[in-house]
Amino acid sequence: MNERILEHDNQVVRRFFALDTQTYKDGALNLKTKELLGLVASLVLRCDDCISYHIAQCRDAGVNRDEFFEAFSVGLVVGGSIVIPHLRRAVDFLDRLETASA
Amino acid sequence: MNERILEHDNQVVRRFFALDTQTYKDGALNLKTKELLGLVASLVLRCDDCISYHIAQCRDAGVNRDEFFEAFSVGLVVGGSIVIPHLRRAVDFLDRLETASA
Amino acid sequence: MNERILEHDNQVVRRFFALDTQTYKDGALNLKTKELLGLVASLVLRCDDCISYHIAQCRDAGVNRDEFFEAFSVGLVVGGSIVIPHLRRAVDFLDRLETASA
Amino acid sequence: MNERILEHDNQVVRRFFALDTQTYKDGALNLKTKELLGLVASLVLRCDDCISYHIAQCRDAGVNRDEFFEAFSVGLVVGGSIVIPHLRRAVDFLDRLETASA
Amino acid sequence: MNERILEHDNQVVRRFFALDTQTYKDGALNLKTKELLGLVASLVLRCDDCISYHIAQCRDAGVNRDEFFEAFSVGLVVGGSIVIPHLRRAVDFLDRLETASA
Amino acid sequence: MNERILEHDNQVVRRFFALDTQTYKDGALNLKTKELLGLVASLVLRCDDCISYHIAQCRDAGVNRDEFFEAFSVGLVVGGSIVIPHLRRAVDFLDRLETASA
Repeated sequence: MNERILEHDNQVVRRFFALDTQTYKDGALNLKTKELLGLVASLVLRCDDCISYHIAQCRDAGVNRDEFFEAFSVGLVVGGSIVIPHLRRAVDFLDRLETASA
Repeated sequence: MNERILEHDNQVVRRFFALDTQTYKDGALNLKTKELLGLVASLVLRCDDCISYHIAQCRDAGVNRDEFFEAFSVGLVVGGSIVIPHLRRAVDFLDRLETASA
Repeated sequence: MNERILEHDNQVVRRFFALDTQTYKDGALNLKTKELLGLVASLVLRCDDCISYHIAQCRDAGVNRDEFFEAFSVGLVVGGSIVIPHLRRAVDFLDRLETASA
Repeated sequence: MNERILEHDNQVVRRFFALDTQTYKDGALNLKTKELLGLVASLVLRCDDCISYHIAQCRDAGVNRDEFFEAFSVGLVVGGSIVIPHLRRAVDFLDRLETASA
Repeated sequence: MNERILEHDNQVVRRFFALDTQTYKDGALNLKTKELLGLVASLVLRCDDCISYHIAQCRDAGVNRDEFFEAFSVGLVVGGSIVIPHLRRAVDFLDRLETASA
Repeated sequence: MNERILEHDNQVVRRFFALDTQTYKDGALNLKTKELLGLVASLVLRCDDCISYHIAQCRDAGVNRDEFFEAFSVGLVVGGSIVIPHLRRAVDFLDRLETASA
């Protein structure tokens, strides 16, 4: 789907997508920390697709289950009980990732 | 002001405040990482008081200026240009903290 | 799903879930009023799962259809037309609850 | 300031303001309950002016301090720690109202 | 579904729906501009149903693909990367509208 | 303040600021329409600084008072009564701009 978006000749949209990719590169903060930041930002803004994406990226960066739950706990306390349905889907997605790679 | 809130005998409010404190303790993720998570969550939810609070906590936890700007960049890209006025106040607050401790 | 979340040994998450349950207990405000507060908060924050949950709780607490629509009207006016798709699903959920118990 | 807004001949804006007033009238739910709904909606959406307005309206409708704190607790748990700075200002506003009328 | 909502005798809800319709009528700003405003507001508030509705209305008002992508770019930059999953669904909906009418 | 932000060598932040400027340039949609989009997006996201900024830009682009109020009406209906305090400040800011240039 991103391809369909990017094949349209809109420079602002294309540059935004490039910038989004650049954001999570290793730097003063490492990739793992940045992906955790993206995950918690997605949790408190309550975007399921974004949460799943960052969970997968975090896993690839070596985040373990205890670390995931601590990140979840920050998102839950900052964002409140309105985050709970998204947390349920986040844990379900994480479980399926772990099962698939077991 | 927290004292005025907590002196009222409401157990849910009191427990929430205790839980909020517990959330950022060292654990599977260290204090520094958790405070960065709190900072970016506050940025994308655009709460100036929360941003200032977590900037101060992050600084105490050893976050340096390059790391702050990378955390800011995640908040800016995830949250969009609507975050910019809060980013201005965040950088201003950080500058004043650094000046005060120089 | 809550069980899968709670079986992980994260005290902040567990305490948050316990606090969430405690929040709606009868007190200075009765259960019915508190569930209505939870319902309107969920409407303006636009979380379908939370809305359905509080509609079911409100119904168990004796909220009738006229009262539901007045609560909906507060959520709609405070939250704006962006609430309308959630209101549609809320009324659909309420209709199905009423049909199931008829 | 509302007068300056309403003296401009825009029918949608005028009707919205009239509808906003109508929303909180006694009906199937009484004024007090509706004002509490408006208060908690304002808390989770984090609008200080709206919170102060509904606190004043709730007080006129007979909401007492214990009831206020239970409404605050619902807003805090649903909306999360990001609500805390607004809760501080809410309690401060309530304290000043109570002092003024003592 | 709107019919089910409107057949209930709640005057605030009915008036809100009427006001919502009135909002987008030709006036000092034309229908096309107003529908674009509704579209970008829906994008930054991230409501898929509202986005699809305004895309269809914009198309009927003559918005072309380049104009859509410029409106999307404003929504994306103001609202941030959290808008991306909604943008994907928006472009997919627009593609299907265009295919259906080809 | 933007200068203080941009003098720090963070490429993501700098590119985001450049992209933000590029977003509102004349294109398939003209500058005036894009600034109106930015204004309504800022209204429904309730950012006073962003609203003031876009009001000033809209005025420079030739938006008149009737057009402003129609844009405000879209923001008010989409975003709900929670937008009202921001609308008050928006009208106050617009009044001051008009007085200053009279």
